Amino acid sequence: MEYRFAARMSVMKPSSIREMLKLTERPEVISFAGGLPAPELFPVEDIRIAAERTLQEFGSKALQYGVSEGIAPLREKIAEEMLSRGVECGRDDILITTGSQQAIDLVGKVFLNSGDCIFTENPTYLAAIQSFQCFQADFVPIPTDDQGIIPEKFDETAGHRHAKFVYMIPNFQNPTGRTMPIERRKKLYEIAVKRNLVIIEDDPYGRLRYRGTHIPPIKSFDRTGHVLYISTFSKTVSPGFRTGWIVAPKEIRDRLIITKQAADLHTSSLDQLILERYLRDFDNRSHVEKVREAYGERYVAMNAALKEHMGANWSWTHPEGGMFLWVKGPQGIDTKNLFSRAIAHNVAFVPGADFFPDGGGINYMRLNFSNSTIPTIREGISRLAEICAKEYAETMTNEGKI
Amino acid sequence: MEYRFAARMSVMKPSSIREMLKLTERPEVISFAGGLPAPELFPVEDIRIAAERTLQEFGSKALQYGVSEGIAPLREKIAEEMLSRGVECGRDDILITTGSQQAIDLVGKVFLNSGDCIFTENPTYLAAIQSFQCFQADFVPIPTDDQGIIPEKFDETAGHRHAKFVYMIPNFQNPTGRTMPIERRKKLYEIAVKRNLVIIEDDPYGRLRYRGTHIPPIKSFDRTGHVLYISTFSKTVSPGFRTGWIVAPKEIRDRLIITKQAADLHTSSLDQLILERYLRDFDNRSHVEKVREAYGERYVAMNAALKEHMGANWSWTHPEGGMFLWVKGPQGIDTKNLFSRAIAHNVAFVPGADFFPDGGGINYMRLNFSNSTIPTIREGISRLAEICAKEYAETMTNEGKI
Repeated sequence: MEYRFAARMSVMKPSSIREMLKLTERPEVISFAGGLPAPELFPVEDIRIAAERTLQEFGSKALQYGVSEGIAPLREKIAEEMLSRGVECGRDDILITTGSQQAIDLVGKVFLNSGDCIFTENPTYLAAIQSFQCFQADFVPIPTDDQGIIPEKFDETAGHRHAKFVYMIPNFQNPTGRTMPIERRKKLYEIAVKRNLVIIEDDPYGRLRYRGTHIPPIKSFDRTGHVLYISTFSKTVSPGFRTGWIVAPKEIRDRLIITKQAADLHTSSLDQLILERYLRDFDNRSHVEKVREAYGERYVAMNAALKEHMGANWSWTHPEGGMFLWVKGPQGIDTKNLFSRAIAHNVAFVPGADFFPDGGGINYMRLNFSNSTIPTIREGISRLAEICAKEYAETMTNEGKI
Repeated sequence: MEYRFAARMSVMKPSSIREMLKLTERPEVISFAGGLPAPELFPVEDIRIAAERTLQEFGSKALQYGVSEGIAPLREKIAEEMLSRGVECGRDDILITTGSQQAIDLVGKVFLNSGDCIFTENPTYLAAIQSFQCFQADFVPIPTDDQGIIPEKFDETAGHRHAKFVYMIPNFQNPTGRTMPIERRKKLYEIAVKRNLVIIEDDPYGRLRYRGTHIPPIKSFDRTGHVLYISTFSKTVSPGFRTGWIVAPKEIRDRLIITKQAADLHTSSLDQLILERYLRDFDNRSHVEKVREAYGERYVAMNAALKEHMGANWSWTHPEGGMFLWVKGPQGIDTKNLFSRAIAHNVAFVPGADFFPDGGGINYMRLNFSNSTIPTIREGISRLAEICAKEYAETMTNEGKI
């Protein structure tokens, strides 16, 4: 039969990352493409014990339906965690979500009518683009520099366009790895207040800082209810749990809970209880310390290998934390072509274009350094650099520049 | 600040069930309100062992990101399960969802534009109403009799209104407990094909039949790609896992996967693996047998207590499986008023009105029998009957009939 789908399906295309990741699954491929944490660092044994204790102690309670806002003891643990990040809130300000991806989806549901305008960084997180596309948002990317969204551009754009919210990732942004300094955060918050605009602050990587000092989230300045803060246990414990959260003003949280209920009733009771038990019985702080250290070493290795092998007309960011760096190729390079060539030589990355809501960015690529060992990073970057050089030479030849 | 929410939020109100369930949480309340399975029957020990084995065997793999469609071995187990229900399908026809509630939500996303018409049973599952309201569907309830949707009414309505799909629960429907006989299923399928209409067949309770014989799902007749079939492990293993599935034609499944990815990336890896391991290592068939038997006894007890205590002007359904029965009060009774009185006397149910997408049904109530022991059922129904008698007497007095 001929199906009649919703209009949103015409903009929701299969993510090219998704399709590409399939190509990168061959074991001989060195992949810098995915956004995966290092599985060898997961606290498997601690979680095994936490799972054992949860099922012993709670029994059938761990397997029953739960409340949509999430179990209270885990929300309490999250409130403590928020305090350590600089945000004072109580457990009733928190909604637990099925990963931070669901938090993004619920924000879209609560705020967006078809055609509503939203502001984003440019480039921004691919799966947030997909999620907001689902609500047929009209993306207005705000120009960014090395410190994130440029305040003057933000103020100017917000002055002549009404947006439902501005979405940003202030720490070790995906895909660029960039971080907003505190002054920039304060300025953006002030502009949001002046323009009466909600800020969606997505912070999955904040605790993965391997250099420099912690910068308080924008949410920590919020006395006016302008900021929604999203985070997750995916990078600090394990992504398999699909457990994230939102901190939101009551009026918004009440609506998020209703949409959460319609979306999946609640997040897995068992996962929430295991996580809570793990956080209670084990030393997550030391665990994150170990992860940070490893990612820092991997970043250093990747940066060194890029320096050693890449041509002078290639540049990249120098993130102080997180999982990605962002490479800019010379004008004329199309990293989608480069990808096909790379995959044939068993190395992979994500072409940058998909991260730009308004197109462009064809000469960029995102490299993940959290999910490869140092020898693999060295070997992979050496392969990649060779391919980049070839691609560049051919591009120049084709354009008649050589 | 003043928030500007999406238009959908004006129809998405907090579920009254949700609000009421809070009132029923006091330990002295006998609650027939929730839709909870019996936790004392959960296979806790088997799941504890399955969790242990999963984390021992898979280690970090159980905690890493996974694919949006769900892990292949679990999809294979589901395909076997589908075959035993009478539906031939392969693992690639299946998408694993975060509970069957998410399956409903994704169906809404894939099909519904604001204002699109959908057909439903009348009454129908409350959380499906909420989910489709989120996409601003225009509900057209089709009249039902004791066998579900009336084919003539369905054909007639489908003849003059275009709907995106018809949503139905053929087995032990929520809230009525009614089941469609096989002839009715076939007729509805034929009409759907004739009218080029998608059927969403929601089957959470199909395996909970304690009387009579299994009736094949509508999906088992589907040779034309008109039927999407939704089910869940919530009633046959445990709802805490939030793991359900959809069987859908490829063209629809591809789109469901894209929206699933934008909604929560994928369902908990750990939960999926534990479930797969539990199904592989333990005897789920015997477990479900035990559940069925217990629910059958509870139904018999509730039916007997209703017969003993309720006045002659109250009637109820006699489901052959599932978790609910549906009580009709005499004209003039408003079960929302009755609810306040009941809760004051420490017994609870769900007023029927919320299950009717177009209003009405104020003299109905839904009673859950799966989550109470037999002595509790006896005591609760005796209390409830007393309150019903009082409410009826007062209603008649107020209306001047006595």
